[in-house]
Amino acid sequence: MVNPPDKPRQIYERMMEKDCFTAWLGLQLDHIEEGCCQMHFSLKPEMSNGFGSIHGGVLFAAADSVFAFACNSHGLVAVALEASIHFLRPAFPGDNLTVKADLIFLGKRTGVYEVKTFNEQNELISLFKATAYRSQKPALPE
Amino acid sequence: MVNPPDKPRQIYERMMEKDCFTAWLGLQLDHIEEGCCQMHFSLKPEMSNGFGSIHGGVLFAAADSVFAFACNSHGLVAVALEASIHFLRPAFPGDNLTVKADLIFLGKRTGVYEVKTFNEQNELISLFKATAYRSQKPALPE
Amino acid sequence: MVNPPDKPRQIYERMMEKDCFTAWLGLQLDHIEEGCCQMHFSLKPEMSNGFGSIHGGVLFAAADSVFAFACNSHGLVAVALEASIHFLRPAFPGDNLTVKADLIFLGKRTGVYEVKTFNEQNELISLFKATAYRSQKPALPE
Amino acid sequence: MVNPPDKPRQIYERMMEKDCFTAWLGLQLDHIEEGCCQMHFSLKPEMSNGFGSIHGGVLFAAADSVFAFACNSHGLVAVALEASIHFLRPAFPGDNLTVKADLIFLGKRTGVYEVKTFNEQNELISLFKATAYRSQKPALPE
Repeated sequence: MVNPPDKPRQIYERMMEKDCFTAWLGLQLDHIEEGCCQMHFSLKPEMSNGFGSIHGGVLFAAADSVFAFACNSHGLVAVALEASIHFLRPAFPGDNLTVKADLIFLGKRTGVYEVKTFNEQNELISLFKATAYRSQKPALPE
Repeated sequence: MVNPPDKPRQIYERMMEKDCFTAWLGLQLDHIEEGCCQMHFSLKPEMSNGFGSIHGGVLFAAADSVFAFACNSHGLVAVALEASIHFLRPAFPGDNLTVKADLIFLGKRTGVYEVKTFNEQNELISLFKATAYRSQKPALPE
Repeated sequence: MVNPPDKPRQIYERMMEKDCFTAWLGLQLDHIEEGCCQMHFSLKPEMSNGFGSIHGGVLFAAADSVFAFACNSHGLVAVALEASIHFLRPAFPGDNLTVKADLIFLGKRTGVYEVKTFNEQNELISLFKATAYRSQKPALPE
Repeated sequence: MVNPPDKPRQIYERMMEKDCFTAWLGLQLDHIEEGCCQMHFSLKPEMSNGFGSIHGGVLFAAADSVFAFACNSHGLVAVALEASIHFLRPAFPGDNLTVKADLIFLGKRTGVYEVKTFNEQNELISLFKATAYRSQKPALPE
């Protein structure tokens, strides 16, 4: 079965219809294809933590969203089993970040993806790695 | 030097003055003391992901906030180096979750904490583990 | 179907027939039941790293072995998808360590376990967390 | 201060004088420079687990050794705070594996490294990520 070239984008659009939190984050799609997805967003003051920098949960959440679009792009509903993140540099309100997810390994039941988040100076802000569990349910109605 | 009994709470309150994202999550303090913190919050529809359940980034962010209060409670400014989370059961809008952070190990420069998130049926929703880097800067002005 | 009380031990013994590396580590069984396993071992000079303390790979390997017995104890062949470890205190040749694995969550296809390693002073040496993928294949021939 | 080109190798050789477990694994150096290290080794029957494939602890240990050489190569004694590994494909006795560590981020007190292990078919066997704590102590006597 050939995957039509726009299927990853159709799946993304269908997921975004319900994905209120990704909308709150303000993530905008740059590119999606099977196994990878890139998005960008602007950091807002309401994303701050107790030290005035961006809350680690916001950085994780953005990576988790882009991972979700990447791991569902293969055509089966997939959910995160676990994820880990290294916080490398702080980010601040007003910064524009780019978030890029790439497939590392695709098995029958699981997939592993890595997500890198960069600031405008192209510095790596965080490194995220996650395992998806792949259901056998199609991501688009047939 | 004796830590006055209300110092962890003073640090928490000072952090919360700036912590806009924890406020957005709606986290309410149940208890704080040196090395542990417990909070609770209600899940809102705007926290949903593309499948109608709660976005993993929200579950991570709540654990990360409670971890931040626990790891700053010792009196020195501390920030997360890395964190990992296992997603065990889904959560849904309307659910009330309890988030509990506990110290596992406190070293001179680093600390390790575990955070468990439970639903109203006392089922474990997620398990979070993180490493804090402890600066030598006091968390309260002297 | 009732799990006979000695089934976890039968599975352990069957696995140990082939498990050369756990034998090399010198791990001895203290206790096994469904979802948990405890073993102990003595640290040998040939387990040292470049600084004269015990190699982190040995501490990980011992935790991974005890995890493997715990996650196969339910009766289905299970393998690690991923694992993480925090190194909290160093260990040295001659130390006797106790390694204890406990089930955190058991799903149909996956399980999450935590493994704690203690020295003779009952200090926590390392904290290990792992996800098992559960095949549908029985761990004992039927 | 310029780092003499052979300093990473001198540090590696000094560490290997004591590193009995890396010697047991049979790891052979391919290349070392500041922030990266590549080694290879052959899998022996005594590295097997209870299913006849290579024990996850051996794969972790090899990655951890190559990480240790990479994170000490900058000239300061560095030790692992935490590490995580994804097991992607099984390996078997007789396989020859290549293990490659790369610096992701170097801070004043910490560093993050990624280690990839490949088999002879150039398939990724495992993905390892770790945080080093950098002491202020020189890795070579002055």
